[in-house]
Amino acid sequence: MTPNPELVLALRGGITESVHRGALAIVDSGGALHSALGDIDRPIFPRSAVKVLQALPLVASGAADRWQLNDEELALACASHGGEARHAQTAAAMLAKAGVDASALECGAHWPYLEEAQRALAAAGAGPTALHNNCSGKHAGFVCLGCLLAEGGDRRQFLRGYVQPEHAVMQQVSAALQATTGYDLSRTAMGTDGCSIPTFAIPLRHLAHAFARIATGQGLSEPHQHAALRLRQAVARAPYMVGGSGRFDSRVMERLGERVFCKVGAEGVYCAALPEQGLGVAIKMDDGNNARACEVVMAQLIARLVRLDEGERSFIRSLAEPRLSNWNGIEVGSLQAAPALLD
Amino acid sequence: MTPNPELVLALRGGITESVHRGALAIVDSGGALHSALGDIDRPIFPRSAVKVLQALPLVASGAADRWQLNDEELALACASHGGEARHAQTAAAMLAKAGVDASALECGAHWPYLEEAQRALAAAGAGPTALHNNCSGKHAGFVCLGCLLAEGGDRRQFLRGYVQPEHAVMQQVSAALQATTGYDLSRTAMGTDGCSIPTFAIPLRHLAHAFARIATGQGLSEPHQHAALRLRQAVARAPYMVGGSGRFDSRVMERLGERVFCKVGAEGVYCAALPEQGLGVAIKMDDGNNARACEVVMAQLIARLVRLDEGERSFIRSLAEPRLSNWNGIEVGSLQAAPALLD
Repeated sequence: MTPNPELVLALRGGITESVHRGALAIVDSGGALHSALGDIDRPIFPRSAVKVLQALPLVASGAADRWQLNDEELALACASHGGEARHAQTAAAMLAKAGVDASALECGAHWPYLEEAQRALAAAGAGPTALHNNCSGKHAGFVCLGCLLAEGGDRRQFLRGYVQPEHAVMQQVSAALQATTGYDLSRTAMGTDGCSIPTFAIPLRHLAHAFARIATGQGLSEPHQHAALRLRQAVARAPYMVGGSGRFDSRVMERLGERVFCKVGAEGVYCAALPEQGLGVAIKMDDGNNARACEVVMAQLIARLVRLDEGERSFIRSLAEPRLSNWNGIEVGSLQAAPALLD
Repeated sequence: MTPNPELVLALRGGITESVHRGALAIVDSGGALHSALGDIDRPIFPRSAVKVLQALPLVASGAADRWQLNDEELALACASHGGEARHAQTAAAMLAKAGVDASALECGAHWPYLEEAQRALAAAGAGPTALHNNCSGKHAGFVCLGCLLAEGGDRRQFLRGYVQPEHAVMQQVSAALQATTGYDLSRTAMGTDGCSIPTFAIPLRHLAHAFARIATGQGLSEPHQHAALRLRQAVARAPYMVGGSGRFDSRVMERLGERVFCKVGAEGVYCAALPEQGLGVAIKMDDGNNARACEVVMAQLIARLVRLDEGERSFIRSLAEPRLSNWNGIEVGSLQAAPALLD
């Protein structure tokens, strides 16, 4: 098997210290390949990069309207957040609107990803709950969907086990994933994600196609079209909710608004919808590096594909070629796109 | 350039989710290659994996005796620690013995690497100091050496800028690195490390040779021979100091004592001395992953090379094939040695 190309170089002292290999696909809404690097036909687990696809049923079912979810709440349903106070509060508010509380969440608890939020919680003498789980918004969305499906019955009983593949909630979520990617999920590998829901192995080509559909609405059912637009707009209006302080996705969408919808996933996955170009992007770093490496790739692609003014271009450049500083603030190196990515 | 081989696979849902490539060299004290994978002649930055080499002058100069440093303090001089209270206190004690305090440290401050220690500090209403820097013990060792060299003069004035390559302290440190690796540091790339001291690019072959010398004493000057033995013994007696709670190096050496001296470095570097086998090991993961990937490689090599009883073998196996669990404690995957590593 030919190795995927080097996409990102970490430089120090004038030499390459580390390298990140990976693959990427850029596809239009008709499924035509715009460009690609590496193996885009091997199924990979998209992890949290597809949260917007998994949130489609929340809107398409009418649950978002039924519980009157606002932009911040819909953005949180697509988020991998830092566990900051506003994130946790917003997840709690979603649950309250649907008439339940945090005890309905089955994502598990972990300390906030953002270290400042973790320390703030510790300083207050508190500990982490499921609301601080980076997936709490997505799960609150699942619960809101479940509460709609359960109407007339016992909500808590209906919700139990909503993370299981065979549960009515997860069936709708997986159906949305299959409809948007056009990939047969019944015949691919299924793993368990960090938050306990199933994750299905899907090729980058199909993931990029799904995001081109999210970007344009083309090839989606009418309810999914409407849901995709509403979720993209919600994230553009409340980008802090999709990540948080200092996070790449939040910073990019705060600056570029609806022109870019991008979302990181665990193990070096990144997906994006570019509405003006009608393109979808899907990236997977071989080594699973889901911070520095795939952010550099995503920033490089945004710089190349998206219409930007001078200030925006300079902002994206700072993300595409970040400088690395040490504990004394001394610049010690940088991250750079590898030649294959610049061709 | 031929890519380095895959060394570690991250599995989920029955498929390979991510892969880590890298190179490794195993060398005896005469410099003969025992075995190798990948490119071992390209110079790489060893980062913190060579702290034991950088600590040789502390002992060889007589500074460790002059300031009566004990095993815990000498182990901390070789450490990348988690910033736990005992680590910070021990670094402070080293400085006090030499008649200075934490203001002499030039490593910079950062929150403890160990999240529990970070939260404990925040809960106490305190912030991080240079003593919590993972390199504070190494730097306290540099300062102890500087205080010996400065005797009769103004210590604080002498110490200033000890992190600079041309300072008398760093000259001794770099000379020890050159003597043990046998590599001409004046003709290789020099970068700045996280804690501001120089890091020199050295091939894995030479790094492994240096660690074979540390393992056996062969090929070292008499003062370095003595220093290597004393530092290895100190770490074996106080392994908590070299890393901390839950850290691979501490766990391995708590269990195996003097049979293994291993030390992680940033950007996916690992070095080890195996005294019973008279071998040195040096590993570099291409992608700079310095947690899961190189730990699996190091554990695999220990399992293969070191004489272990049944209980020890089972312990090392758990590190060589760790299971991955999610936030609900559900097993979702594992790390495995790639075929190249098992050959």
